[in-house]
Amino acid sequence: MSEKPDYLHAPNFIKRRPDGDLLERSVCGRCGFVDYQNPKVVVGSAVLQGNKILMCRRAIEPRKGYWTLPAGYLELYETTEEGARREALEEACAKIELERVLAVFSLAHISQIQVLYRAKLIDPRIAAGPESEEVALLEWDEIPWKEIAFPSVVWTLAALKRTWRQDDFAPATNPPEGAFAFPPNGPPRL
Amino acid sequence: MSEKPDYLHAPNFIKRRPDGDLLERSVCGRCGFVDYQNPKVVVGSAVLQGNKILMCRRAIEPRKGYWTLPAGYLELYETTEEGARREALEEACAKIELERVLAVFSLAHISQIQVLYRAKLIDPRIAAGPESEEVALLEWDEIPWKEIAFPSVVWTLAALKRTWRQDDFAPATNPPEGAFAFPPNGPPRL
Repeated sequence: MSEKPDYLHAPNFIKRRPDGDLLERSVCGRCGFVDYQNPKVVVGSAVLQGNKILMCRRAIEPRKGYWTLPAGYLELYETTEEGARREALEEACAKIELERVLAVFSLAHISQIQVLYRAKLIDPRIAAGPESEEVALLEWDEIPWKEIAFPSVVWTLAALKRTWRQDDFAPATNPPEGAFAFPPNGPPRL
Repeated sequence: MSEKPDYLHAPNFIKRRPDGDLLERSVCGRCGFVDYQNPKVVVGSAVLQGNKILMCRRAIEPRKGYWTLPAGYLELYETTEEGARREALEEACAKIELERVLAVFSLAHISQIQVLYRAKLIDPRIAAGPESEEVALLEWDEIPWKEIAFPSVVWTLAALKRTWRQDDFAPATNPPEGAFAFPPNGPPRL
């Protein structure tokens, strides 16, 4: 990826289409630097221990106090797998083993894609990391459906439930518009 | 995602760890703007028509003259599926229907992830777009293995061949280090 220049001047971004490009970009009128902006990647996991699913209650905004799965922004020079393991460790002090890709979602309106893995807990000791108020291993019927942080958490849990005990399946992609109410009133209808 | 500020000043980036963050970021010492840098997403597809695979000979650097699959950077406000369809249209004037996620690769050393779909050509008319010197529908044995543009093209083709005619399978992830020679001498051993 292109490196940021050391700014020795105030960049004077103008919108223009660089040579060979199809879209307008922010190009510095002084030095020609093209400031490409692209979607960001969130990586995470649905972590199982037997019939239980690892969930985290958020200690930070947005959606503080609501429940989510361990997930966060992929960092530079990190694989998606490393990122998913790091997030489980940071948010739930959880050591996990990734099994396979469970879902690839696009949240186009916020320029975000999400890569979610199905994983197993490999050490039963979990604990709230700094971004979590509480972590828990929950059976499907114990999930606090009315207190879920984000729609894509519901989509991921639905993908997990739909492929329960299966090894070979296509990863979930975005559900049809309106397939799952949010906030949900109870478990998603599959 | 955070919006770039309109620069009314030369940003004076210093490395520091923002509150609640675990890593150092570039933070403007004048206005506090945090310039998060994250990996970029490439989306693409292995497009089939019967036993033939759509390939493109690159008209641009890097690897001008070498063969690749239609793929490119995901744009802001685009789903991965829209991006994969757009790239097939731009590079090979190809109208495609995506079937499923074939692979999720991480090229951590260049902070890139790739989401590749298996797809079908839905209109037999293909043609070189501005970034391609030539496009072709090739049988497995016709693929110019010694003239492949990038290692991940080999990984994707290997994933395609391995799951030929299967509907249910886990997406490919990065192959073990050294599993495929690059540049290859011939078709990958599966």
